[in-house]
Amino acid sequence: MKSRLTMNPDAFDLSEYLAKKRNLLDSTLLKILSMQSAELELTRAVSHSLMAGGKRLRPVLCMAAAQALGGDYHLALPPACAIEMIHTYSLIHDDLPAMDDDDLRRGVPTCHKAFSEATAVLAGDALLTHAFTVLAHPAPYFNIVPNNATLLELVFMISRAAGVNGMVEGQMMDMLAPDMDMPRENALNYLKKLHWLKTGQMIKVSVQAGAVAVGGSREMVDQLGRYSEKIGLAFQVVDDILNVEGDPAVMGKATGSDAEHEKLTFPALLGLEPSRKFAKELVADAKDSLISFGEKARPLMAIADYIITRKR
Amino acid sequence: MKSRLTMNPDAFDLSEYLAKKRNLLDSTLLKILSMQSAELELTRAVSHSLMAGGKRLRPVLCMAAAQALGGDYHLALPPACAIEMIHTYSLIHDDLPAMDDDDLRRGVPTCHKAFSEATAVLAGDALLTHAFTVLAHPAPYFNIVPNNATLLELVFMISRAAGVNGMVEGQMMDMLAPDMDMPRENALNYLKKLHWLKTGQMIKVSVQAGAVAVGGSREMVDQLGRYSEKIGLAFQVVDDILNVEGDPAVMGKATGSDAEHEKLTFPALLGLEPSRKFAKELVADAKDSLISFGEKARPLMAIADYIITRKR
Repeated sequence: MKSRLTMNPDAFDLSEYLAKKRNLLDSTLLKILSMQSAELELTRAVSHSLMAGGKRLRPVLCMAAAQALGGDYHLALPPACAIEMIHTYSLIHDDLPAMDDDDLRRGVPTCHKAFSEATAVLAGDALLTHAFTVLAHPAPYFNIVPNNATLLELVFMISRAAGVNGMVEGQMMDMLAPDMDMPRENALNYLKKLHWLKTGQMIKVSVQAGAVAVGGSREMVDQLGRYSEKIGLAFQVVDDILNVEGDPAVMGKATGSDAEHEKLTFPALLGLEPSRKFAKELVADAKDSLISFGEKARPLMAIADYIITRKR
Repeated sequence: MKSRLTMNPDAFDLSEYLAKKRNLLDSTLLKILSMQSAELELTRAVSHSLMAGGKRLRPVLCMAAAQALGGDYHLALPPACAIEMIHTYSLIHDDLPAMDDDDLRRGVPTCHKAFSEATAVLAGDALLTHAFTVLAHPAPYFNIVPNNATLLELVFMISRAAGVNGMVEGQMMDMLAPDMDMPRENALNYLKKLHWLKTGQMIKVSVQAGAVAVGGSREMVDQLGRYSEKIGLAFQVVDDILNVEGDPAVMGKATGSDAEHEKLTFPALLGLEPSRKFAKELVADAKDSLISFGEKARPLMAIADYIITRKR
C-alpha cells in the first residue's frame, strides 16, 4: 500500500523534497568549508556567499536526475556540491563593480560589498578551484562516491559547461550586449544564445551529471539533456519576468534594474504575456520528455513546474 | 660513443633545452586556443596573456621531472599546459586594479589594460576552468596521454595547489600583508608562508605532476618534492632581488615597486647580500636532493642554476 501512496502524483510534496535536499547540501557544503585551513578572511568571504541561502536549484536537479534513473542520489552529491560552488563563484564575479556592479544578492550584501573587491575576486577563484579538488578527491567529504572514471568524466563535463564555451562565454556576451544595436530577431537569437551559454549549459550539466554519477546510459543522459535545455531557458525567461514584476522583499534584490539599464530581456523583446506563454510551453515540453522515466521522475517534473511558479 | 657525449655534463645546453620545450609548449597551447569557438574578445584576451612570452618555468619543470624519472616527457605535456594556463590566470587576476594594479606584464600591457577589467576577470576565469577541461579530457590536444586514474590524480594535485590552501590563499596573504605590523622574525615567517602558498605550491606541483604523469613511485615523487620546495623559495628570493636591481628593459616590467610600496620582501628583511646567499644555498640544497637521479636529472639541475642566474 505504501508504494501505491507514493505513486500518487498528488502525494508528492515538492517543498518537503526541496527542504530535505537543501539540508543535505548545506550540511555537506559546511563540511567542505570546515575542512579548509585557509586565511580567515578568505574562508569568511567564501562562506558568506556559499551559505547565503540560495535556491540550490542546480544541485537539487543533479540529485533528482540521479533518482529519475533509479539511482542513489548520494552518488550525485559530489557533482551537486561542485556545481553549487561553481555557481556561487560565478555570482561573486558577476556582481563585481567591473561586471554587473550589484550591491545585494540573496538579500545580503554582495561579496565585494561585505568584504573587498580583491577578496571577492579571490573568493570566487577559491570556490571555482576547490570545486575541482572536491570532485577529483571526494572521499573526505562523502560516504559514497562515483568511481574514478566517472569522476574524471564529471570534471570534464562540468568544467566544459562552466568554461570558455559555456558560462564564462555567456557572461562575456552579457557584458558586450549593451553595446549592440541590432534588429529584433537578431536580438532574440543573441539573447537565446547568451542564456544557453550563461545559464543553460550549467543547468543542463547539473541534470546530466546526476545521471552520469549513477551510471546512466548515453541514451538516458541525452533524454535528460532535452528536459534540462527546456527548463534552463524557461528559468531565464522567468528570471526576466521577475525582474519586471517580482517582489524585491521576496527576491532579496532590487527589481526593475533590467528596464532601467535597457537590458536585452524576453519581456522587452516579446512583451510580458508572450514571455509567460513561452515559459509555460517550455516547461510543458520539458515534462513531456520525462514520460518514459515514469514515477521516478516526479521530482524533476515538480521542479519544472516550480521554475515557472517561483516568486524568487 | 653518442650516449657518452650526452652524459658529459658540459655538453648540456640549457638554452637549447628551454627553447625546444618552449616551442613545444607554445604550439600545444596555440592548438588548445584554436579549438575554442568562444566570443572573439574573450579568445583575444586569453591569447594576449597566454602567449605573451612568459618564461614557461613551471611547464618546463613538469617535463624535466618526467625525464628525470626516465619517462617520456610528452606524457607530462597535459599537466604542463594546464599548469601554465592556471599560472597565467593567476597573473591576470593579480594584476587587476583591485589587486596589485599593474599596467605592464612580460613587456606588454596587462590584460585589463589591453582589454577591460571585466574581460580580464573573465579571461582569468576561462583559463582556470579550461585548464581542468584539458586535463580531464586531453585526447583532442595531445598524442599520448596518462591513463584516467593518473589524470584524476593530476586534477586533484593541481587544483589543490592552486586553491584555497595554496595559491589563492597566498595571494590573499599578500593582499593583507601591507596592513600588518610585526617583529622582523614574524615578518620573515609570514613572508616564507606567503611565498610557499602563493608560488611554492604551484612550483612543487609542477615538478611532482611531471613525475606522476609518467608513473613515478611515491618515494620519487616525494624526493622531487624536496627539490621543488627549495627552488620554489629560491625563485621568490631572486624575484625580490630582481625587483631591487633588475633591468626593467630585460624584465618587461617596472622595478623598484616593492620598495616604493614598502612591500615585505627578502632584501627588505635580510638585506641584498644575505638574500643572494640564501638563494644560492637553497639552490645547492635543491641540487643535492637530485643526486640519486643521476644524469637524467641534468635538466632539473640546470634549471636550478638558472633560477639564481636569470635576469628576468
